[in-house]
Amino acid sequence: MSIVTIARQFGSGGRELGKRLADLLGFDYYDREIITAVAQKQGMDEDYVKNVLENHAWNTVPLSFHHSFAAPVVMAEPQMGILQAQREVLERIAAQDRSAVIVGRNADVLLEKNGPFRIFVCADEDARVRRCQERGDPREENLSERAIRHNMRRIDKNRAKSREFVSEKRWGDPASYDLVINTTDGDVKAISEATAAFLRVRLAL
Amino acid sequence: MSIVTIARQFGSGGRELGKRLADLLGFDYYDREIITAVAQKQGMDEDYVKNVLENHAWNTVPLSFHHSFAAPVVMAEPQMGILQAQREVLERIAAQDRSAVIVGRNADVLLEKNGPFRIFVCADEDARVRRCQERGDPREENLSERAIRHNMRRIDKNRAKSREFVSEKRWGDPASYDLVINTTDGDVKAISEATAAFLRVRLAL
Repeated sequence: MSIVTIARQFGSGGRELGKRLADLLGFDYYDREIITAVAQKQGMDEDYVKNVLENHAWNTVPLSFHHSFAAPVVMAEPQMGILQAQREVLERIAAQDRSAVIVGRNADVLLEKNGPFRIFVCADEDARVRRCQERGDPREENLSERAIRHNMRRIDKNRAKSREFVSEKRWGDPASYDLVINTTDGDVKAISEATAAFLRVRLAL
Repeated sequence: MSIVTIARQFGSGGRELGKRLADLLGFDYYDREIITAVAQKQGMDEDYVKNVLENHAWNTVPLSFHHSFAAPVVMAEPQMGILQAQREVLERIAAQDRSAVIVGRNADVLLEKNGPFRIFVCADEDARVRRCQERGDPREENLSERAIRHNMRRIDKNRAKSREFVSEKRWGDPASYDLVINTTDGDVKAISEATAAFLRVRLAL
């Protein structure tokens, strides 16, 4: 039973890579499903949970609070509940004893004791902007390039913050992962196939 | 014809990974051979050339001179000659039209126009210290752990500096490479086999 976690810069193709890996390796795939499960568990609206996990919960947290002398971070009760529910959902996935690819959600940290294989996917900002423009995400298709860049930085900043809340190992730092894949110069399909070949050997599948 | 370049943190197992990759893929392998060729080309002693490339040439260069308003870096003539000879040796290797693995020497930058597949190998400092102690490098076997750590940091600092002298893309930054491999939690032999499987697909070998 193997767990592969994918953390990624926004627009790097990390989600596509995760989905393709799961297909190629015959692993279960988790992404948005985790938010759905957390929302059900808490009896909350899915969009609200998503928003808390991806934005609200982190806006009040200074980026490097681990290393500062600032006062302890105080989080509102519903936020803490959602974070705890997310941890439980991830642990339930790991307990199923089925191989899985999990995208995002700090799964690499939260499931650390299960020894996941931790991948980070990155790309140059220009390549990521192009990717956002090409894939025509309805959230972005009417946005200017400048707005896309702004969104991208905000989202990745929140990802970095949400990671710092659960680990001292920094988001995007190679020391925090087993493999960092840069998709700038390659097609995500081809990179996914190569990564699947890597994992078949590395995880002795 | 493919060129794979390996940059690495000292003690990460990057050289072993490079050697194993070359064996597994049937590629030529270059490492110390480049220094030998530069020394021959310049009619200089090999140890002197090695020392210039790995230490002396960089001690006078501020780490971020690209971004500073400092005066231009002035290098002594023999140093410039050695750097130029190194570039020519690398270009001669690329011109041979044979697939090769090249360890170090900023080959990823100096051969950029040949579109190398760029790998960076890293590991946590503790894992790298253990590796240095275990491999019993004669340069280190009588050194205390503290001295090994000191050496390690000095060597990697020089590597970062020597890279900054030829590129604005930073040494060790995932944005500068196609793949970053962390050997902390794995055996370099197994990681090499997985990486070879990755490259067979990625480079369509």
